[in-house]
Amino acid sequence: MTTREKIAALRRLMKKEGLHAYLVPSNDPHLSEYVPECWKRRQWVSGFTGSAGDVAVFANEAGLWTDSRYFLQAERQLDGETIKLFKLGLPDTPSIDDYLIKRLKRGQAVGIDPQVISEERAAALTKTLDERGIRLRFTPNLVDPLWDDRPPMPRGAIDRHADRFAGETAEAKLARVREELIKADADAHIVTALDAIAWLFNIRGTDVEFNPVVIAYAIVGRKNAELFLDPTKVGAKMQAWLKGFVKVRSYEEAGDAFRALGKRKARVMIDAGATNRWVVERLKGATIRRAPSPIQKMKAVKNETQIRGLRNAHRRDGVAMVHFLHWLENTLKERTLRELDVAEKCDAFRAEEAMHRGPSFDTIVGFGANGAVVHYSPVTGENAKVGKRGILLIDSGGQYLDGTTDITRTITIGEPSAREKELFTRVLKGHINLARTPFPRNMTGIRLEILARQALWEGGVEYGHGTGHGVGQYLSVHEGPVGFSPRALAPLEPGNFISLEPGCYSTGKYGFRTENLVIVVKDKKRSTKEQEWCALEALTLCPIDRKLIEPALLSNEERDWLNEYHARVMKELSPRLAPEVSAWLAEQTAPI
Amino acid sequence: MTTREKIAALRRLMKKEGLHAYLVPSNDPHLSEYVPECWKRRQWVSGFTGSAGDVAVFANEAGLWTDSRYFLQAERQLDGETIKLFKLGLPDTPSIDDYLIKRLKRGQAVGIDPQVISEERAAALTKTLDERGIRLRFTPNLVDPLWDDRPPMPRGAIDRHADRFAGETAEAKLARVREELIKADADAHIVTALDAIAWLFNIRGTDVEFNPVVIAYAIVGRKNAELFLDPTKVGAKMQAWLKGFVKVRSYEEAGDAFRALGKRKARVMIDAGATNRWVVERLKGATIRRAPSPIQKMKAVKNETQIRGLRNAHRRDGVAMVHFLHWLENTLKERTLRELDVAEKCDAFRAEEAMHRGPSFDTIVGFGANGAVVHYSPVTGENAKVGKRGILLIDSGGQYLDGTTDITRTITIGEPSAREKELFTRVLKGHINLARTPFPRNMTGIRLEILARQALWEGGVEYGHGTGHGVGQYLSVHEGPVGFSPRALAPLEPGNFISLEPGCYSTGKYGFRTENLVIVVKDKKRSTKEQEWCALEALTLCPIDRKLIEPALLSNEERDWLNEYHARVMKELSPRLAPEVSAWLAEQTAPI
Repeated sequence: MTTREKIAALRRLMKKEGLHAYLVPSNDPHLSEYVPECWKRRQWVSGFTGSAGDVAVFANEAGLWTDSRYFLQAERQLDGETIKLFKLGLPDTPSIDDYLIKRLKRGQAVGIDPQVISEERAAALTKTLDERGIRLRFTPNLVDPLWDDRPPMPRGAIDRHADRFAGETAEAKLARVREELIKADADAHIVTALDAIAWLFNIRGTDVEFNPVVIAYAIVGRKNAELFLDPTKVGAKMQAWLKGFVKVRSYEEAGDAFRALGKRKARVMIDAGATNRWVVERLKGATIRRAPSPIQKMKAVKNETQIRGLRNAHRRDGVAMVHFLHWLENTLKERTLRELDVAEKCDAFRAEEAMHRGPSFDTIVGFGANGAVVHYSPVTGENAKVGKRGILLIDSGGQYLDGTTDITRTITIGEPSAREKELFTRVLKGHINLARTPFPRNMTGIRLEILARQALWEGGVEYGHGTGHGVGQYLSVHEGPVGFSPRALAPLEPGNFISLEPGCYSTGKYGFRTENLVIVVKDKKRSTKEQEWCALEALTLCPIDRKLIEPALLSNEERDWLNEYHARVMKELSPRLAPEVSAWLAEQTAPI
Repeated sequence: MTTREKIAALRRLMKKEGLHAYLVPSNDPHLSEYVPECWKRRQWVSGFTGSAGDVAVFANEAGLWTDSRYFLQAERQLDGETIKLFKLGLPDTPSIDDYLIKRLKRGQAVGIDPQVISEERAAALTKTLDERGIRLRFTPNLVDPLWDDRPPMPRGAIDRHADRFAGETAEAKLARVREELIKADADAHIVTALDAIAWLFNIRGTDVEFNPVVIAYAIVGRKNAELFLDPTKVGAKMQAWLKGFVKVRSYEEAGDAFRALGKRKARVMIDAGATNRWVVERLKGATIRRAPSPIQKMKAVKNETQIRGLRNAHRRDGVAMVHFLHWLENTLKERTLRELDVAEKCDAFRAEEAMHRGPSFDTIVGFGANGAVVHYSPVTGENAKVGKRGILLIDSGGQYLDGTTDITRTITIGEPSAREKELFTRVLKGHINLARTPFPRNMTGIRLEILARQALWEGGVEYGHGTGHGVGQYLSVHEGPVGFSPRALAPLEPGNFISLEPGCYSTGKYGFRTENLVIVVKDKKRSTKEQEWCALEALTLCPIDRKLIEPALLSNEERDWLNEYHARVMKELSPRLAPEVSAWLAEQTAPI
C-alpha cells in the first residue's frame, strides 16, 4: 500500500466511526522512547521513521508534526502531497492541538487509540477540545486492521539481572515500593514504564532496540505483585526464581487485573504522565492517586554495587574508545573512510570488550556539516566521506551487563582554524564549569545547567538541546527524572548518573560536543552537619582532543581540571593497552 | 481580649457552625503581599505581626505556621500556651495540610472564609481533604464578628498615574487586554490583584502601606470595563477622566457583577492563583478559562517612558544613598548610632529627593549578627547599637512618582577581617557574574540564577533566599512573574525590571548582601537575525564598599565590571553632589 492508499483506507474507517480527525502518535502502550516494530503505527502510516512525530488525519488533509531534529529526514521520507509536514518550534507552526481546534467545528469528534496516549495528555487534550465543543473519542486502533504485514510481538527470552550487578534484590526493591504505597495511602501501584519494570524485578530482555527491556505491565500491591508478560519468554529457571516474589501472568490478562482493582475499589497510584489512558479506563471504581512513580526516583539513585559496575564498564568502554580513536587517526593517514565505516568500527571495538551487549543507541558519526545535525546518523543521513580537513563528531555508547555508556568526542581532521578552536574551547569551558562546581544536595538540574552555557553565551553562541539526561545501569540510555536541562526539576543526590554534553553547531559547517557521563557524589570536604554538598565525578574515560583547545581561553582552574582529568584517563587506561596504543594515549593526555 | 479569649470565642462560633477546624490565613481578598489594617485578621487573632503566617484553630489546640524569616519574632509574639508555633521548612514540621489530615477524622469539616483563599489553593486543599473524607467548607468570616475595634476600610483619595510616567494610556492597555481576551476565546477577564488594577487604569492610591495601590476589583469585557472601588475616593476630575474608558461602581457591587457574568454564561478568564474562591463561587454558570492574568506579563515589561522614569528615579535615589553613606561614615566618627537612627536617616535623605512618595518597604538596618537575620528590621528587632567594628547591612528603597527603588549595601565599620572580605567578595563575584552574562531572549530566571551562587558554592557557602524579584514602576517592590529564583519560570525579555541580590549569612556573626536593580536590555552587539540576545544593565547607582573587596579573588572580567560600574556611578551622580560629597564619592569609586 502507498501512503496515499493507507490514508484513504484510514479515512474510510474514520467515516464509519463518525470521526472527523484521527490521531496516530508515535507512542506505544508503554510510552517508550524506542518503540518495538509491531507498534510503529505512525511509521507505517506515514513512511517517516524518526523517533518523534505525530500524525493527524482529517477528511481532506493529513499532517505530521515533528521537531527540528527531523525536518530534513521528514521532508525526504514524507509523501508531501498526502501528508503535510508541520515543523514544530518554528514561529508560524501551530501545535497539533491548535490545528485540531482550527480545523474542526463544534460537535465534531477526534479519535485516538487510548493505548497510545498518556492519561495526563489525554486529560489536557480532552479539556482543550471540550472548551470548543469538540469531543476526544477513545476508539480501538484504526491502523491495526489495515496493517497486513504487521510484525508480531517480540518473543526473545528474558534474563535475570544478577544481584552482583544490581546490588539490591527484587524483594528489597518491592519492599521499598511498598513503603511508598503506605506513605501515599495507596493499595497498589501500576507500573507501565518498561525500564521501571526491568529495574524493579531485576530482569532484562531483548524486546526493544538498544534498551534491554521486556514488554510488560506490573502491579505492586501491599502484599503481592503481578507481572504481565508473554510467558513463553520465561524459562524454567527464571520461572522458579520469579515465583519467589511475583506472580507471572500473561500480558493479555493485564486489562482484567486493572478492572479487578477497580471492582474492589482499591486506591491505586499511577504516574499520569507515564500511564496510558486505556489502563485508567479499566480502573473504573478505583480511587486514583496521581503521583510520579516512586520507582523513577529510586532507579535514578545508583547504589555502591551499581556504581562499581558503572566504573568498570566505563574503564572497558574507555579502552574501546582509545583503540578506536587510535585506529581512526592511523587509518585516515592511509585511506578514505565514510561515516558509516567509522561508526561500524567504533561499535566493533566496543563489541570486543567483556560483558558487552550491543550499542546503547544508534552511533552518530557526523563529518563537517553533518556534525551540525544534532541527531544525525550515517544510516539515515548521507554517509559522507571523512575529508582531509574538518571536524568529526562521534556520539556513541554501549550496553554492558554492568553498565550503560554514552560518550561524545569531537576531533579535528587536519589543522583546525582559530574559529573552530575557539568554539571547541568554549564548549569545553562549559563542560568543565559544570563538572567542577560543587552544589548543595537537592539542587536541581534546571538550575545548574546554565554553567555549561555561560562561556558559549559570552561568545554569542547558544545550543538548542539539553545539557544532560539521566542514564540507566544496563538499561535505557535516557531516563528520568534527573538531568541538566529545563525539564530537569528533580533534586539531585549522591548516586544520580547523568550525561554532561554541551555543544555548539553551525549549520552547513560543523558541530562540536563534548560528553562525559558523571556521577553525583557527596563532597565530603565541603559538607557540614547543617549542609550536605555534592560534586560531579566523570566516569567516562577518554581523551579530549588537545589539538582543538585554545589554551589562552582557559582559566587556571579549567586548565587544572583538564590536566587532572587527562592524567586520570592515562592512569586508568594505560595498564590495559598495548605499549604502542599507550604511548599514543600519553601524547593525547599530556598536560597543557 | 487576650489571645486565649479570642481563640475561645472562635471555638464557640466554630461549634455553632459544626466546624472541627477553622483556618485564618494572612491573606486578604486580593491576596496582597501587604495587607491593609482592616484585613489583618490573622494578626488580630494571634498577636503575630509578620507578613506570612497562617493560623489553624482546632477544638483543643491552635497553631501558627510560618517560615524561618519569622521564627524569632513569632516566638516572641505568640502566646505559646494558646497557639503552638509550627516552624515551616524544618524536617519534622508537618505542613498545615498534613496536620489537618492528621488531626481530623473522616466526616469532619474545616472552615474558611472563601475571600481569603485563592481558587487554586482552595481546589488543591479540597482535593487533599476529600481524599480523606474531610470537608472544606466555605463560611462567612468567623473573626469579623468578634473583632470589636476593627479598623475601617482605608479611604484615601486616588490619583492618576500621569501618562508622562506610565508611557501608555489606560485605553491602550485595555485594548491590549482585549486582544488577549480574543486569543483566549473569553468574554471577560476579572482582575483582582491590586497592582494589576493600578497598572491597568493608570491609578495610584494610599490604601496599602508601601504599595501605592487602591482596593478594587475590575472586570475587563470585550467592549466595556468596570472598576469596583469606594466611590468617595474618586474626585470630580478623576471621575471625569475615568468615565472615558471605565464604569466606576462601588466595591460592594462587585459580587453582583460577577454573578451577572455567570447568569449570562460568559466565558471568563481568571488567574486561579491570584483570584479568591469567593469570586469564583459567584461565577456559577460561566465558563471559566484559567490562565495567568495577561496583565502580569504586560506590567513586567517596562516601556521606554517607564525606563526613562526608572533611570531618573535611580539617579535621585543614588544621590540620597550617597548623601546617607557619607553622613553615616562621618557621624559614626563622632557619636554612637542605633540601627533605627540609621534607618530613619536613610529614609530622610530619600524624602529630600524630588517626587519621593515614601519608602517602598520597611528599611532594614542590621549590625553584626542582626545582618544575618534576612528580614530583620530595627523596629521589630532589637535596634542594636552600631559598634566600632563590624558589618552593617542596609536594605532600603523608595517610591517615586517615576519609579520604585530597592537597594542593599553592606559596609564595614572599622577594619574587616580576611574572612569577612572573602565572603563579601564571593557575594560580589556572584552579583557581577550574573550581571555581566549575556543570555538569549526568553531565558528564564530559574536557569540564570545559579550564576550568582557559583562563587559562594566554591567557598562552601549557600544562601536561603532567591536572588531577585520583579519590581514595579511606582508600584509594588515585589511583582511577578519574572525574577531570578527557583520560582521564576517566566521568559525574560527587554524591559523586565528585576532585583539582583545574592547574599551570605553567618548566624550570630554577620550578613552580606549586594543588591542592584537591573533592567533587561537588548544586547545589540550580539543579536543576529536568528537569535536575539539580552543583557542586564544596572539602574541602581551607589558605590560598593571597596574596603570589603579582596581584589585577589576577582577575575579580570569581574574587576573590569566593577571599575566600569563605579566610574558610571561617579559620572552620573557627581554633578548633583556638593564638592565635599563628590570628593568623598570619588574615593569610594576609585578603580581597584
